[in-house]
Amino acid sequence: MIRDPKRLSTSEAIRQQHGRDLTSYHAGRFPDVVLYPKDKEELREIIAYANRIGCPIVPFGLGTSVEGQVVPVQGGISLNFTHMNRILEIRADDFAVRVEPGVTRMQLNRELKKYGLYFPIDPGVDATLGGMAATNASGCSAVRYGSTREQILGMEAILADGSPIRTGSLAKKSSAGYNLTQLLAGSEGTLAVFAELTLRVYGLPETFLYAKAVFPDLQQACKAANRMLYRSIQPSKIELVDAYTIQAINSYKQTKYEEKPTLFLELSGWKSAVTAEVERVKEIIQEEGAGAWSHTFDESFGEQLWDARRHAALAIAALAPEKKLMTTDVCVPLSVLPEAVSFAREVMQAEDLQGAILGHIGDGNYHAVFPIDPSVPEEAAKAAKVNERIVRFALERGGTCSGEHGIGLGKKQYLTEEHGDAVPWMKKIKEAFDPNHILNPGKIF
Amino acid sequence: MIRDPKRLSTSEAIRQQHGRDLTSYHAGRFPDVVLYPKDKEELREIIAYANRIGCPIVPFGLGTSVEGQVVPVQGGISLNFTHMNRILEIRADDFAVRVEPGVTRMQLNRELKKYGLYFPIDPGVDATLGGMAATNASGCSAVRYGSTREQILGMEAILADGSPIRTGSLAKKSSAGYNLTQLLAGSEGTLAVFAELTLRVYGLPETFLYAKAVFPDLQQACKAANRMLYRSIQPSKIELVDAYTIQAINSYKQTKYEEKPTLFLELSGWKSAVTAEVERVKEIIQEEGAGAWSHTFDESFGEQLWDARRHAALAIAALAPEKKLMTTDVCVPLSVLPEAVSFAREVMQAEDLQGAILGHIGDGNYHAVFPIDPSVPEEAAKAAKVNERIVRFALERGGTCSGEHGIGLGKKQYLTEEHGDAVPWMKKIKEAFDPNHILNPGKIF
Repeated sequence: MIRDPKRLSTSEAIRQQHGRDLTSYHAGRFPDVVLYPKDKEELREIIAYANRIGCPIVPFGLGTSVEGQVVPVQGGISLNFTHMNRILEIRADDFAVRVEPGVTRMQLNRELKKYGLYFPIDPGVDATLGGMAATNASGCSAVRYGSTREQILGMEAILADGSPIRTGSLAKKSSAGYNLTQLLAGSEGTLAVFAELTLRVYGLPETFLYAKAVFPDLQQACKAANRMLYRSIQPSKIELVDAYTIQAINSYKQTKYEEKPTLFLELSGWKSAVTAEVERVKEIIQEEGAGAWSHTFDESFGEQLWDARRHAALAIAALAPEKKLMTTDVCVPLSVLPEAVSFAREVMQAEDLQGAILGHIGDGNYHAVFPIDPSVPEEAAKAAKVNERIVRFALERGGTCSGEHGIGLGKKQYLTEEHGDAVPWMKKIKEAFDPNHILNPGKIF
Repeated sequence: MIRDPKRLSTSEAIRQQHGRDLTSYHAGRFPDVVLYPKDKEELREIIAYANRIGCPIVPFGLGTSVEGQVVPVQGGISLNFTHMNRILEIRADDFAVRVEPGVTRMQLNRELKKYGLYFPIDPGVDATLGGMAATNASGCSAVRYGSTREQILGMEAILADGSPIRTGSLAKKSSAGYNLTQLLAGSEGTLAVFAELTLRVYGLPETFLYAKAVFPDLQQACKAANRMLYRSIQPSKIELVDAYTIQAINSYKQTKYEEKPTLFLELSGWKSAVTAEVERVKEIIQEEGAGAWSHTFDESFGEQLWDARRHAALAIAALAPEKKLMTTDVCVPLSVLPEAVSFAREVMQAEDLQGAILGHIGDGNYHAVFPIDPSVPEEAAKAAKVNERIVRFALERGGTCSGEHGIGLGKKQYLTEEHGDAVPWMKKIKEAFDPNHILNPGKIF
């Protein structure tokens, strides 16, 4: 199975490391053993063996999930993909790459850059592509490129009985049979384990333009973003930060950002085309009553801009370094976003929680991020209450409980609220694919 | 069930009309009865009843499928969606619409135009949105917007036992549970019947720019298209027509198009941005050795351009008006396209078949279109041979047997060649969703 004993560990430190995700607030348990397969053959043998003896299998990339997806709640094997991190083929002229699931997005982008290509999906952290595919991660670029799911042209996956299947192809589209690729993507390791992914990549834009606009209120910021999309402007990023969050950043970083709702923007493409486009964007933004507006091709400004956004989480974490950051992940219809963000702020304030609100405003997906100590029952209850109110608000307005983090352990009850009539049919698929319940048991359902 | 007897027909003419698709060369059979449900309730009752008595159900939109999807090979009920053609809600600020499955794409676009919005997917014919969702249709705009599948935010579907489920939401993205939406989309009526679709729509671009470039050879035309994508230029359409096809158009229409491989292009967006972008496009095109190049914002030129593309099929059909047009539908990795198109031309010539080759060059999807008389055994054999060689060529190079027409009756053997190891798992899903095999039996598998 594992042909080198060095790639098997039962040490407590290693097992502990594989017993939690980025948040560390999901009740977990250590795996019994951590295995580091080095190729498909080992992967297949491990899974077939686990299926025979009824042993849980929990895939583990870099452990950056936030809904407990990597936590082995029933023990068993944690499958670490560190040794399956090869970029197998870059097919530049096909705008496609073949990678092992342990390759990280930054690793891929470093390599792609040599070919003038890039993989735009950026969930913030440097996750593995296997993990991003498993949770259907997205982030700031989804407004233009979609989520990870849309980037997967095909895959080799190992099913619960050890059968390898190939889904999709190297072609950019297909109508050949059931779409297993986009079913397995986002299934959080509960239907199959990825052995290889074929991903769509893109020509690196000639230019990136960065912009920042400060608005008197949230409503106007959202309206401006909406009007841009209406006018078929396709920003590569468009992010919203609320006034309170800017305040937190200022007090943390001693910066002097204007403490008002702010849009962070990125356009990309040909310099001449982007130069023309930004004038229209500026026009729309100013018609919607923006105060300060700045834009530039200067990369250092861009870095500063995205840094400020990242600082929000740091600023919040710094408020209580001993606590864990909890994050919500609802996605609402675009028109509901300003109201949803205001509501989330109210709910946090009602519970006396300080936190950041970060919105992927082009998608309607936003995060309320706040520190809690999950071992203190009142704090855990508060967090659960805030989460619940934010989720219900979204569901009542046609939204979803998870825009990009997945269900894992943390959102199981909300999946039932959101898709009650469909969940039994999801379970039928689970039953057909994994009758012995060895693949990431206890997740999603 | 059907509350008005006028919405039930057993007349021979009506049954005959529901016994064939656009191509008419798939061996078929009449349905026993045609029902025209007018709402979800009727739809549910019909399906639940059919399931109880084991009666086949075959959804029928406008009958424009080309792989026999609507042909009731086992008789039973043909479900015509003519009376379920209401646009239920246009949520302009959410860039989303809710429609019944019988709404056609042109009907939707006429309505959307009032809101400055549009639905870009254009498979050529004016199909119903339900039909487009069922086969995952795409067409010329897929290079920018993807296929129909990517436009579906959610749906209400009726499962084989009559259970209604809601998948997806009004949010633009979701990681909540298994992705049933994109599984049911493209399942050709074999897993569920659509009762309502929630679709993504887009701001209507301010301007469309049309261009045409003539190349000395196929290889150069493909290389130019590839370089455009490399430079992150996102045309809204980019189509390839080979020299032989232009020749056929000229002889049919008495036009004088230069008889060489030709790219038809559309850019869209802000006029100023498009004006800047087209200069880059022209540069690339000319660097790749294009001869004649023309571009314009003039809509009548645009209409003429897409007309010329449509004429290709007419020109071919006119060669033998008593015959049926057969079309292949492979999609290959982009780098393989020039070779694949040359190969298809050779194969047709070897069998002495005259036909058009039309390529969605940004996707690697192309169609070889030629007239045959399927009742003449030698002609049917010829067509099958050409199709087989073209499909094998694609599969051997990492492509797919169907880019956008689906499997239906026509590609069943190739689905097994392409996805042999995955087909048993597709069948497990079919078994779990439709254990009595009432939903479009005999299709896909």
